[in-house]
Amino acid sequence: MQNKLSVYEELRDQGRDLITRPPDTTTSPQQSHRAKQNTTVTVTAYNRSSPHERRAVGVGRRWDVLHVWSTARILVPLLREEGFDVHALCGRSEEEARSLAQELGIPFHTSQSDDVLLHPDVDLVCIYIPPPLTRQIAVKALGIGKNVVCEKAATALDAFKMVTAARYYPQLLSIVGNAWRFLPAFVAMRRLLTEGYVGELQVCDARVYGPSLLDQSYGWTCEELMGGGGLHTVGSALVDLLSHLVGKRAQRVHGLLRTFLQQNGAIRGIRRITSDDFCFFQMLMGGNSSGSGAGTASGVCCTVTLNFNMPGDFVHEVMVVGSAGRLIARGTDLYGQRNGSVREELLLRDSGGAGPEVHLPHLRGLGSMVTALKQAFQGPTERRSWVRGPIDMAATFEDGLYVQTVVEAVKRSSRSGEWESVEVMTQEPDPNQNLCEALQRNKN
Amino acid sequence: MQNKLSVYEELRDQGRDLITRPPDTTTSPQQSHRAKQNTTVTVTAYNRSSPHERRAVGVGRRWDVLHVWSTARILVPLLREEGFDVHALCGRSEEEARSLAQELGIPFHTSQSDDVLLHPDVDLVCIYIPPPLTRQIAVKALGIGKNVVCEKAATALDAFKMVTAARYYPQLLSIVGNAWRFLPAFVAMRRLLTEGYVGELQVCDARVYGPSLLDQSYGWTCEELMGGGGLHTVGSALVDLLSHLVGKRAQRVHGLLRTFLQQNGAIRGIRRITSDDFCFFQMLMGGNSSGSGAGTASGVCCTVTLNFNMPGDFVHEVMVVGSAGRLIARGTDLYGQRNGSVREELLLRDSGGAGPEVHLPHLRGLGSMVTALKQAFQGPTERRSWVRGPIDMAATFEDGLYVQTVVEAVKRSSRSGEWESVEVMTQEPDPNQNLCEALQRNKN
Repeated sequence: MQNKLSVYEELRDQGRDLITRPPDTTTSPQQSHRAKQNTTVTVTAYNRSSPHERRAVGVGRRWDVLHVWSTARILVPLLREEGFDVHALCGRSEEEARSLAQELGIPFHTSQSDDVLLHPDVDLVCIYIPPPLTRQIAVKALGIGKNVVCEKAATALDAFKMVTAARYYPQLLSIVGNAWRFLPAFVAMRRLLTEGYVGELQVCDARVYGPSLLDQSYGWTCEELMGGGGLHTVGSALVDLLSHLVGKRAQRVHGLLRTFLQQNGAIRGIRRITSDDFCFFQMLMGGNSSGSGAGTASGVCCTVTLNFNMPGDFVHEVMVVGSAGRLIARGTDLYGQRNGSVREELLLRDSGGAGPEVHLPHLRGLGSMVTALKQAFQGPTERRSWVRGPIDMAATFEDGLYVQTVVEAVKRSSRSGEWESVEVMTQEPDPNQNLCEALQRNKN
Repeated sequence: MQNKLSVYEELRDQGRDLITRPPDTTTSPQQSHRAKQNTTVTVTAYNRSSPHERRAVGVGRRWDVLHVWSTARILVPLLREEGFDVHALCGRSEEEARSLAQELGIPFHTSQSDDVLLHPDVDLVCIYIPPPLTRQIAVKALGIGKNVVCEKAATALDAFKMVTAARYYPQLLSIVGNAWRFLPAFVAMRRLLTEGYVGELQVCDARVYGPSLLDQSYGWTCEELMGGGGLHTVGSALVDLLSHLVGKRAQRVHGLLRTFLQQNGAIRGIRRITSDDFCFFQMLMGGNSSGSGAGTASGVCCTVTLNFNMPGDFVHEVMVVGSAGRLIARGTDLYGQRNGSVREELLLRDSGGAGPEVHLPHLRGLGSMVTALKQAFQGPTERRSWVRGPIDMAATFEDGLYVQTVVEAVKRSSRSGEWESVEVMTQEPDPNQNLCEALQRNKN
């Protein structure tokens, strides 16, 4: 308990550091701090009961550290810091929800998602649960008329259903919370790219190395089909980030997935890990896609290497290379070098000594995202309404569908060994297709 | 001239630093310094006449710096340092040969390769010329009965002809001088791999980023078919190194080549660069190769990223990751981390402040290779004979053929977009195949 509390305190301090208020804010400190007293938030986080389990909530992009922290523990202080009232918490079990709500001082808790979704005081629902459950709650929340911030879905079909719901309720906020888009280093990188710092963009190279993403007990993180593995968890965030930075979408992908660790001390016997711990994929963005093979097309080549068999030091590097220079984000810092200059310049230093290095990119990004959310809800006078401006750079559900499509194309490529084209679903596949075909045949 | 001389002096100092004598050497300093007075060497290096041209000799693995240095300028002092008599120098033109021979103090010079090959005083021929010319001189040198150290050939067919010659004269030394195999960091890495430092090897990841490999004027470096480009020049050395480190050969490869810079200030008009400046390939080594695609096979995955659109800072990193830890060579230093330990440990520090960082891995490797050559020639009393022990780790012509085969498979894969299997040539393709088929058809 001692440990939990101290970590929580540390986190609050960090949360404070994380928030970088834009210089053009015109609100007074008081106003900014308590933006809109009555915008209330509910956090849906399925926390496991045992404190020894590594992953407290079904979230991908922060690891290792999650045996003590959960996304709720990270998110709730950030939301409060920005003036949101965190009103309700939904957990997997009554007991788990109660304990976490008590710890975080949240007045209402439940294990029934309907209780929070139907609650009249709730304006914004943050959904951080295992990928296979995300679609169900996100779609329901939109149907009830709540604004939604959620994690990615497990499959492209789920993502498509979420897109359909989001299109149906355009007045509601619906974003896939890829915090990396909000990280100051990537915001600056994107700006510099449009300003032509690197000249004509040629190559993006992203690498994330870290310790295992697996839970300590068998669960969705072990299962490729449930959205486990490096590609789904980290790779999807990189697909989203790179497409966002480049401003183009992947047309063709090639990938290689491996599960080097198929069993471990906790997962053994008849159980096997199917989710990847090594993943390596290439995306071709823009350019001429008609050429055979990959040799002739121009456009931007993105390469992503993920390796989660590397305990200890953590590598998080995104590099973009163009005809006139390059930009490199290492962790939360941004470096650049133009072709003429002798050495690399530090363009943005953002690692102000807060917290362990390993999850900084995500934590800082999350902080900036919550700040943007605050600004979105700050403007309008109506409690539940919001403005698009501040969260314009967030990933929409449409982006989420695109990312899932790329992820599935990479998986397909790893099985086929070939380049696979990325074709975003435009209508739901007929679940009774075989049946219909059989009926058709009978009729003729 | 001032510049050349000062660089040369600097190089000599560096050459001295480079030579790391093994601690178990039993020869006296005098002996070691003047190993075998009468082993003479000829260096065949086609040097360009203009000092403004970037690449003085047809050598791949050192760049940028080559507008002043040439391999001859690097190699000759190293050879002398180890007690070899550098007897003759062959250049492309009489004038060029004379000027370089004068500069380096070499008694005999010519522009006719036969003059040096047939010279009775010459025991060892070092061939550092553009790839398309290597085969011809290497095969001829072996035929005349000289020991050969050379650079890679331009094509697998050339490499096959060199293998045939080497097999025919097994008593002659014939090595492809991949200096990286001799670099102390990689020697240590290989030893640690066999000792199980990283446990079961899973992934190798090599990256070399640097400035353009192109000559300042149009030449073989611009032509893919003549052995220009990052894949052929640097990639082939990495293929050789990784196979040497892993102890297995690539079975299937997948690659992507790009020529981002197709014209520049010096190469324009109707001329276009066809050699790659960005290359990205994967090799699957060992494991089960029968599975469809790449998803199911086990074995070691190697990924190589080469980017030569990055002036300024130079990145040269080779990482091997296994089940129990990892080893990383950054430049000439070796780092390691076992899974249990908190931080990376420095295993070998070898960048003792000599020369610019950019070409250190190659320079140091070359130094170690020359030392090994000296040891090979030191033992036997007969002037031209040698022992295998010290140069056992050198790449043979057979290795050279394998490397060329991988390089061509990667090029094929980049065109087809598919995984290509590596099948080493076992007999020379019939050059008159079409003719024979036509005759066959006429007969029937």
